[in-house]
Amino acid sequence: MTETLAQGATIGILGGGQLGRMLSVAAARLGYRTHIFEPGAAPAADVAHALTTAPYDDAKALAAFAASVDVITYEFENVPTAALDLLEATRPIRPGRRALATSQDRLTEKTFLQDLGLATAPFAAVEDAASLAIALDEIGTPAILKTRRLGYDGKGQARIMAPDDAPNALASLKGAPAILEGFVPFRAEISVIGARGLDGAVACFDPGENLHRDGILRTTTVPARISAALRSDAVLIAARMLNALDYVGVMGVELFVTPDGLVVNEFAPRVHNSGHWTQNGCLIDQFEQHIRAIAGWPLGDGTRLADVQMENLIGDDIARLPELAAEGAAIHLYGKAEARPGRKMGHVNRIVRP
Amino acid sequence: MTETLAQGATIGILGGGQLGRMLSVAAARLGYRTHIFEPGAAPAADVAHALTTAPYDDAKALAAFAASVDVITYEFENVPTAALDLLEATRPIRPGRRALATSQDRLTEKTFLQDLGLATAPFAAVEDAASLAIALDEIGTPAILKTRRLGYDGKGQARIMAPDDAPNALASLKGAPAILEGFVPFRAEISVIGARGLDGAVACFDPGENLHRDGILRTTTVPARISAALRSDAVLIAARMLNALDYVGVMGVELFVTPDGLVVNEFAPRVHNSGHWTQNGCLIDQFEQHIRAIAGWPLGDGTRLADVQMENLIGDDIARLPELAAEGAAIHLYGKAEARPGRKMGHVNRIVRP
Repeated sequence: MTETLAQGATIGILGGGQLGRMLSVAAARLGYRTHIFEPGAAPAADVAHALTTAPYDDAKALAAFAASVDVITYEFENVPTAALDLLEATRPIRPGRRALATSQDRLTEKTFLQDLGLATAPFAAVEDAASLAIALDEIGTPAILKTRRLGYDGKGQARIMAPDDAPNALASLKGAPAILEGFVPFRAEISVIGARGLDGAVACFDPGENLHRDGILRTTTVPARISAALRSDAVLIAARMLNALDYVGVMGVELFVTPDGLVVNEFAPRVHNSGHWTQNGCLIDQFEQHIRAIAGWPLGDGTRLADVQMENLIGDDIARLPELAAEGAAIHLYGKAEARPGRKMGHVNRIVRP
Repeated sequence: MTETLAQGATIGILGGGQLGRMLSVAAARLGYRTHIFEPGAAPAADVAHALTTAPYDDAKALAAFAASVDVITYEFENVPTAALDLLEATRPIRPGRRALATSQDRLTEKTFLQDLGLATAPFAAVEDAASLAIALDEIGTPAILKTRRLGYDGKGQARIMAPDDAPNALASLKGAPAILEGFVPFRAEISVIGARGLDGAVACFDPGENLHRDGILRTTTVPARISAALRSDAVLIAARMLNALDYVGVMGVELFVTPDGLVVNEFAPRVHNSGHWTQNGCLIDQFEQHIRAIAGWPLGDGTRLADVQMENLIGDDIARLPELAAEGAAIHLYGKAEARPGRKMGHVNRIVRP
């Protein structure tokens, strides 16, 4: 364990939501403290050693934060570049800048995947009506127009079912640089949660099968209903991406299962909602795996020990708590004060017994 | 879920050691905040919402602490009575005072067990040389002289192998009220971690088998190597104790396995070191079970899903961290700054695969 973070060291986490919260608990379990940096409400602070409440353009707060920690990680990929520049001058950021830069921009991301020889949806850059017309000509309809940056949970997207929809779709993005993606005819979406250690070792959790509603993940079920060959393909794709980015930490990769094999949808350079099942299906979960990687530990044993279904609790789902508590399920709540529509309030892991 | 603690409520925990730390994480997982009260160093504060550092005779600090929380629990049974009186005037204490009073005093504890018709080691109260002589006459040697209060991990105890040892043994206890216990010829020690909800429901984890060294728990292994009949006896004994004390929360019961059946050694009115295996062997562990009980939730599913061995990391054991991290084991560290001899620094759970 050369380069291993010393016991009692502090891990800085950018973002104080549920992912930061669960990372913080995993860090504590391995003997580390955490310091959360978050401009808004920070449920993660309930289980963290320290909290800085400041915007990402507060250079003084960023500098003090960086000086107080030993390594920096993040729970979301849209950290402003200027903040990262400032932080990186003081402490290592893991996963590194290349993974962030690649995943922050859908066009860069798709190009990266294509350059690796991986299958993606057909895509083209869109800056204006003219380039959209050319892209539609090439890709056809139906297609989906997405902002290159800052989209999540179905936000910043517009469907184009026929060429006539183009002007409205373009207008809805309010001039943001965009990408047009062709539809991929898929029978399922799966995720691979992969990890790469400081020593370059790679380990992946078993792929899970995702179901979305209204653009938000509803459930992930493991094992995914795919062949052993596809399962192996999925893991190899994730490993290839991890190596190409010289990645350190956990990455979530979303893949479409199509008649022609796997198509990469997107990746997130962080722990991922579709990996929450690992908390109750494995000895070492994705959060601990991430902390192990960024702290320079050997990766842990992520062998799947059970069949699990993870269900997100979104908005008013939290009202079902009494019945969920009476059921034989593992409940994970995020400590958020208010249940707004579309807001992730917690999740439930159920062991699927044969 | 009538009487259920509302989401976002705060649980007060007396004691900021590793048990408070792991309770705090479980509370967060169920959507609660925690406030730790601890006179000394508090590794639990790294994963808690708030910390009060004050001695147990600081009435003002106790009152402010009680006013800031919704329910109070504890990680150790030797909370001073005056502090409990003050706290209880403001907020409910769970488990209740009767369990604390019974377990704080070895004589009261043994009498309670005897009154329930449960087998214990032969015992007698000892105040001085005269009562010790009478007790030795009755119980014989070898025997063990223990302080009635404040003993743990083998402290406050003296063995009497022959009557000649009596004066030295008595002197070593420095006049503290004591109890003489006869030796129990046992082939194994087991623990049952039992839980009782606010609604009176009882659930027990599978008994584990304990190995001690120098009076400190080294390993707990589940399943214990006992017959199904003894396993059932152990659970029934724990359930009987929980009901008799109108208990709310998790209790650890230590039992000797003898040729004549089970003999109760002692109980702790709290989560217990010998129950740490539940973190990696069950969907709901002892810490969550305790929080569920004191928060008025239904008890969770504590079915054992795997064979597990828990090993304590004591003092210099922590130097083995590099090799442990490379092994396929779940590591739980307590965030303690200094590794002193006999100090519990963490534990490791290993899934025992067939």
